[in-house]
Amino acid sequence: MDAHWELVETEPFDSERLRGWEGLFTQGSGYLHVRGSLEEHLSDAPQNLTYLRRPANVTAEQFPSLKAKWGTFIPGIYGEHPLMGKEMANLPAFLEIAPAIDGERLDVSHSAILSQRRALNLQTAVLTRTLRWRTQSGKMVEVGFERFASAARPHLFVQRMTVRCDAPAHLSVRAGINSDVRTSGFDHLARVDFARIAPDQIRCDAALDTGDEVHLATWASLAGASWTFHDTGRAAHLEAFIPCEAEQVIVFEKRTAVTASADSQRLDPTALLMLDRRYEALLAEHAQIWQQRWQRTDVLIEGDAESQLYLRLALYHLMRAHPGDSRFAIDPKAAAGDAYRGLYFWDTEMYLLPFFLYTDPERGRMLTDFRIRTLEGARRNAAAYGYRGARYPWEGDADGVEQCPNWQYRDHEVHVTADVVYGLAHYARATDSPEYLTQQAADVLRETAVYWLERVDWRPGDPYPSLLGVMGPDEYTPISHNNAYTNRLVAFALDQAALVSPEPLKSRCLAVARGLPIVRRADGLVMQCEEFERLAVLDFDALWLDRSQPFAAQVAQERLYRSRCLKQADVLLLMMLFPDEFSDQEVRQAWDYYLPYTTHDSSLSPGVHAIIALRLGLLDQAWAFWQRSLAIDRDGGAAEGIHIAAQGMNWQIAVCGFGGMRTAMQSEHLRLTPRLPAHWARLAFPVIWKRQPAYIDIRPEQVTIENRSDRTLTAQVYDDRRAIPAGESAHFSAPR
Amino acid sequence: MDAHWELVETEPFDSERLRGWEGLFTQGSGYLHVRGSLEEHLSDAPQNLTYLRRPANVTAEQFPSLKAKWGTFIPGIYGEHPLMGKEMANLPAFLEIAPAIDGERLDVSHSAILSQRRALNLQTAVLTRTLRWRTQSGKMVEVGFERFASAARPHLFVQRMTVRCDAPAHLSVRAGINSDVRTSGFDHLARVDFARIAPDQIRCDAALDTGDEVHLATWASLAGASWTFHDTGRAAHLEAFIPCEAEQVIVFEKRTAVTASADSQRLDPTALLMLDRRYEALLAEHAQIWQQRWQRTDVLIEGDAESQLYLRLALYHLMRAHPGDSRFAIDPKAAAGDAYRGLYFWDTEMYLLPFFLYTDPERGRMLTDFRIRTLEGARRNAAAYGYRGARYPWEGDADGVEQCPNWQYRDHEVHVTADVVYGLAHYARATDSPEYLTQQAADVLRETAVYWLERVDWRPGDPYPSLLGVMGPDEYTPISHNNAYTNRLVAFALDQAALVSPEPLKSRCLAVARGLPIVRRADGLVMQCEEFERLAVLDFDALWLDRSQPFAAQVAQERLYRSRCLKQADVLLLMMLFPDEFSDQEVRQAWDYYLPYTTHDSSLSPGVHAIIALRLGLLDQAWAFWQRSLAIDRDGGAAEGIHIAAQGMNWQIAVCGFGGMRTAMQSEHLRLTPRLPAHWARLAFPVIWKRQPAYIDIRPEQVTIENRSDRTLTAQVYDDRRAIPAGESAHFSAPR
Repeated sequence: MDAHWELVETEPFDSERLRGWEGLFTQGSGYLHVRGSLEEHLSDAPQNLTYLRRPANVTAEQFPSLKAKWGTFIPGIYGEHPLMGKEMANLPAFLEIAPAIDGERLDVSHSAILSQRRALNLQTAVLTRTLRWRTQSGKMVEVGFERFASAARPHLFVQRMTVRCDAPAHLSVRAGINSDVRTSGFDHLARVDFARIAPDQIRCDAALDTGDEVHLATWASLAGASWTFHDTGRAAHLEAFIPCEAEQVIVFEKRTAVTASADSQRLDPTALLMLDRRYEALLAEHAQIWQQRWQRTDVLIEGDAESQLYLRLALYHLMRAHPGDSRFAIDPKAAAGDAYRGLYFWDTEMYLLPFFLYTDPERGRMLTDFRIRTLEGARRNAAAYGYRGARYPWEGDADGVEQCPNWQYRDHEVHVTADVVYGLAHYARATDSPEYLTQQAADVLRETAVYWLERVDWRPGDPYPSLLGVMGPDEYTPISHNNAYTNRLVAFALDQAALVSPEPLKSRCLAVARGLPIVRRADGLVMQCEEFERLAVLDFDALWLDRSQPFAAQVAQERLYRSRCLKQADVLLLMMLFPDEFSDQEVRQAWDYYLPYTTHDSSLSPGVHAIIALRLGLLDQAWAFWQRSLAIDRDGGAAEGIHIAAQGMNWQIAVCGFGGMRTAMQSEHLRLTPRLPAHWARLAFPVIWKRQPAYIDIRPEQVTIENRSDRTLTAQVYDDRRAIPAGESAHFSAPR
Repeated sequence: MDAHWELVETEPFDSERLRGWEGLFTQGSGYLHVRGSLEEHLSDAPQNLTYLRRPANVTAEQFPSLKAKWGTFIPGIYGEHPLMGKEMANLPAFLEIAPAIDGERLDVSHSAILSQRRALNLQTAVLTRTLRWRTQSGKMVEVGFERFASAARPHLFVQRMTVRCDAPAHLSVRAGINSDVRTSGFDHLARVDFARIAPDQIRCDAALDTGDEVHLATWASLAGASWTFHDTGRAAHLEAFIPCEAEQVIVFEKRTAVTASADSQRLDPTALLMLDRRYEALLAEHAQIWQQRWQRTDVLIEGDAESQLYLRLALYHLMRAHPGDSRFAIDPKAAAGDAYRGLYFWDTEMYLLPFFLYTDPERGRMLTDFRIRTLEGARRNAAAYGYRGARYPWEGDADGVEQCPNWQYRDHEVHVTADVVYGLAHYARATDSPEYLTQQAADVLRETAVYWLERVDWRPGDPYPSLLGVMGPDEYTPISHNNAYTNRLVAFALDQAALVSPEPLKSRCLAVARGLPIVRRADGLVMQCEEFERLAVLDFDALWLDRSQPFAAQVAQERLYRSRCLKQADVLLLMMLFPDEFSDQEVRQAWDYYLPYTTHDSSLSPGVHAIIALRLGLLDQAWAFWQRSLAIDRDGGAAEGIHIAAQGMNWQIAVCGFGGMRTAMQSEHLRLTPRLPAHWARLAFPVIWKRQPAYIDIRPEQVTIENRSDRTLTAQVYDDRRAIPAGESAHFSAPR
C-alpha cells in the first residue's frame, strides 16, 4: 500500500493510545459515523460509566480517562442532557465481532498478541486490522478484520473477519449489538428492544429521551454455523461454534443497517442489509465513490510524505463527515466523538466551508442551505433574548436552536450571526450565484440585520454605533466592546442585507455598517477590542509550566479573563479574511503585538497563523504552524473526536497559504501567490472557481493552471494575469 | 396585645400567601430554625417535589410555586448538591399536630374555617394561632396553637394545642415527624430511621449525603390518650383518639429536641425533652431571655406604628438568627429558607455586623471570630485559584470554603476578602479592642494582604497598581477594572495589614494601598469602575414593563452586562462607609448620576440609598427608601426566607440614618446628627459605644444621651460635643 495513502497505527499496539486511534480511524457515510474501536472489545474498558458532565470550557475540561470510547452517531439524533441541553446521542454499538479459539476469547488487553497492524486506507476508506495471537494452549492464530461505512449505501456498515489457526481448533464467533453505552457519561436511551428476526439476524429498536428513535438490523454470516441468540436486556448477540482445520481460512461477515426517526424517508433496516450482494460488490461500489471524491479534492504534495499523508487524512475526514443533506451540518468533532455534543458552530462557515466550496460546491451549498433552513430557529433565539430578527446559535442543533450551556459564549459570542452571512455570500461568490443572496438567502440577510440594528448601542457622546459586551473569536476576553473582527463581520453582513432590503431598513443597515468602528491605537495597531490595552500583562513563563497542555488548564479562568491572553487568532483572523483592507505593515504590526499573547489553546489558531505568516514571508514560522495544525489530531489528539475545523484549515493552509490562492471573497478572478516550503517539489490540486473546474500544479520553478472548463478562465499567478482558453493550460514562471 | 409588638396575619387567610408568612413567622433558637408552617399541614402541598436547581442569579431565579414550603434548619448541617455545592439541608419536619373531629381532619385548604388568626409575639418570640372550624356534621370547634423555639434551651422546640368543641365528639390527634422533604428540590437525606422509644415518644435518626447527622426526639402528651405508632419509612407519627365532652378544653402538648453531628458536644435528644418541666416554666425561661434581648436592642419609634412594628420584626429576626456560636454565621435568608443555601456572604460584615457590634458586642465578636476561625478555608480558596495567602469565599460554608456555583460571582466578586478585614477592624474599634487586630486577627490581615499583593496587576504604562477583572457590589457589571468600592476596601485592608506586618511586606502593603486608584471623571464624579461610561445607556421604560418584578427577570443577562445598570448601591455604599472622604457635593453628584441607573434588584440597595439620602437632606427620598427597605419581607417577600441583610440595614437606617449615629469606623467618639421624619415624635435606642452603654433618646426638639456606664462618655450631637459623667444624662437641643 502506498504510504501516502495509508494511516497506520505505528507504535507497538498500546491500549493507552487507543482512544486517539479510535478518533483517527473513525469511518462514516455522512449519515452514520462509527469510531475506530476494536471489534472484539476490551474486557477492561466498560462503556457504561455514568457521570454528570457540566457546562465548562471544553479546552480545559477533563474527561474520565476511559481506555476505549465507543461512538456510533447519526447527526440529528439527539439526547436531552439535563445540564448541557441537546446533544448528539451515542447510539447502540454494533461493531462487535468477538472470536474465541477453544473457548479462549481474543482480548488484546490480556491475550498474547505477537503482532498487530491497523491501517486506514484513505483512498478507499476501508479500515483493516491483522493480528497474530498465540493461545494459552500454544496455537498460533491469524485474525484479519476489514470494515467500511458504505459510501454508496449510507445506512449500511459492512465488516468481515478471517481467521486461520495453525492447528485444528474450535472457533466460536460472537456478533452483537450493545446499547449499554453513554453519551459523555449520560444514558440517553429510554427504551431498547432486541429481537431475533431471522436465525442469523438481530434487530434493535431504541428510543432516546428526546423521543428520537433508531433501528438497527444486523446479519451474521459464517458458512456452516448454527447461531444461538442471547438477549441480556441492554445487549444482544448471536453466537456460533464451528470446528476449523489447521490452516483453514474461516471467513465471517457482518452487516449492519441503521435507520432513524430523523431520516427523510422511512426505511426498513432489514431491507437495507443487501443480502443479495456479495461483500466484494459492496466494497467495489463504495471504493468507486471514494475514488470520485478524491478526483475532486486530492491535494498532491511531493517531497514531503508526512505532509502528504496527514493532509489526505484531513480531506478524508472532511468528506466522511459531510452529511450530504442540508438538514444537518458538521459538528466540531465531525461525529467522531461527543465532546462538542454534535452541535453546529461558526466553524462551518469559517473553517469548513472553503474546502467544499472550491472542490464540491454542491456540498458547500448544503452547508449554507442548512443556515437558511434553520432561520426559524434563529428567530426563536433572537426572541429568547428579547430581540426582533434572527440570531444564529453559538451551538445549534439541527433546528438552529441555541443549545450552548455556557452563558459567556451563548450570550456574548454573537459574531456567529454575521459569520453565517459571510458564508452565504461566500457560496454566492464562489459559485457566481448572486441570485442566492437576493432570493434564497434574502430573509436571512434581512432578519439578521434587524437583530443587529437592535443589538448595537449608541453611547452618549459617540457619533458611531457600537457592539458592546461581545466575545470575539478569542474566547479569553469574554465581554468586550467593539471587537474588531465582530464589527467588521457585522458591517459586512449589514452591507449584504442592504442589497436586499427596502427603505428605511436599507439606509439603517448602511449607516450602522459604515459606523461600526475598527478601533486602532495611536500608532495604527488594530485593537482586538477597545479595552485590550487595559488588560494585565501575564508572566506566561511563570504560569504556563506544562506547554504540552492548554494554558487554560493551568490557570484560573479569572486570570485569563483579566489579562492580555488570546485563546486563538482574533485580529489576525480578520486580516486573513479581508487581506486587502490591511497593509503588510499593519498585519506585521498585529502579528508582532498579538502573537506573544496567544496561547493557541484552540485548534482553530495555528492555521490562521500559518496563513498570515506566509503572507508576511515568515516561512519558518509558517512551517511551524503548519506542522502544529497538521498534528492536532495525532498522538491522542483525536481521542474525543476529530478537530474537523483544523482539518478544514489544513486544506486552507495548503491551498490558500502555500498555494496562495485567494478566495472568491478576496478576488474576482482566480489568483495565486504560491509560497512553497523549500523542500516541496510539487503542490497540485483541483479547484472549481466560479463554476469553472481547473487544476493547479505548483512547482518551485513554475506554476501550471489547466482550465478544465468549457469557457475561458482568467487566472493570475503572482502579478501575471492571463486568459486561459477552455481545455488549455497556462504556465507561469515563479518571480525572481 | 400591643400592636407595636405583634405581627398578625392580617388578610383573610389566604393559602396563596402562605409561603410569605412561613418566612415571616420563622422561629429560631440560633441553633435550630423552623419556618412558620401550619401544624396540621395542607393536603394539597406535597413537600417531596424533586427538581434540579441550577446555578443562576438568585434575583431572577424562579422557584417552583409550592403552596407551602416547610423548613427545618440547623446552620452547619449540610447536604451536597451535585450542581450547587454544599447547602444547608432541610431537615425532617417535626411540627405536625393534626387534629380530627369524628374522623374529619382539619385541613384549611378544604375545611370550613370560619375565622383564623395567626400572630407572632415579637416580645416573647411565641407564635400563636386560633381558628374556628365548622365540621361537616355542623359541630363548631375552636382550636388554638402556641409554639416557640426555646431561647433558653436551643435544642428544644415546644408546641401546645387546645381544642374545644361545642358538642360531644371524638378527637383524634396525630403528631409526627416527616423526613420526606427536599432542600430546593433535592433529597439530601441518605438514611432515615424511626423508632418508638417510649409509648409517647418517637426518635428519628437521619444521615445526610455529606455524612452529617441529625437526631430528633418527639414527645406527645395528651391526658388520657393511648398512642399508636405508625412508621411509613420516610415519616412516622403517634396517633391517639379520645372522647371529648361539649365545651371541654383538651390540651395537647408536643416537644421536640434536636441534636446534630456538628454540635460542639454530643447530647442525647431524649434527655433534652425536659419532661420534668411544665410548659409554663419552659415558656417563662424562654420569654425572660427575649426580654433581656429587647432591653439591649429595642429601638423605640413613637408616632409611626408601622415603622415601629416592622423595625422590631427586623430586630427579632436578627436576634433569632444569630447562632450564638463563632463556628457559624448568619446566611442571607437567616435560616428561614434555602434559596441562598445557608452559606455566608459579605452581608455579614457590611449589613449585619453593626447591629450586633453596638447592641451586643459579644455576639458581634462571634461573627468576626467566625472569619478568623475559617482562615484555613480562605487559604484553600486562594490556593485553588493559584494564589498564596487567603481569599475569603463569596459563598462560604462553615469551614470558609468557597461553595458559590456561579463563576462570575465566585471568581470576580473579590471584595469580600477586604470586607472581612473591614469587619474585623470594625469590631476592634467599636469595642475599643486594638489588640484584636494585632493578636487574634493578625494572621487574617497578613494573609489576605499576601493574596491582594498577588492579585493586583501593574499594567504597562500605569504608575499605579490595579485590581482588574472584578465585580463590585453591583453585580450587573460583571468583570470591571478598578471598581472604586473594591479598591478602597482593599486599600483599607492593606493599611490594616501593614500595622501587623514585618518589612518588606509592610512597605508593599502600604505602596499598593496608596496606589490603588479611585477613578474619577474629569468633573470629579467618582466612577464605579474605569469602563462605566463606556457602557450602553438603556431605555428602562421600554424594557422594564413590570416594576413589581426585578429588572433582571425581564431582560437578558447579556443586556445587563453591557449597560449602565446597577443591581444595587456601589459607589454610594463606598460613600456611606467612608463619609469623610467625600464632600456633600461629591456624594450628591454620585447620587444624581447613579440613581437613574440603579434597579434596586438587590434587597441590599434601598437601605444604603436611605442613609445617603438623609445625609443629602433628601428627606422624601429617604422616607421612600426606608419604606421600601422595611417592606422587603412583606407581602410574600419572605417566601424563600428573610432578607436578613436588609433587616440589618433597617437597624442601620434607623440608628445611623434617622438617628444619624456615626459608627466607630467613622468617629472616635459617639456622634449623632439626627434627622427624624416629620411625623416621628421619638426615636430612642440603647447603644454600647466602645464598651460604654448609653441610651439615646431623640425627640424633634431635643436629644438626650444617658451615659449608662461607669466612666465619662464623650458624645456629640450635631456640633455640640460634651463629656457626660458616669450615670448622667445630657440634653442637646436641635439646631435651629
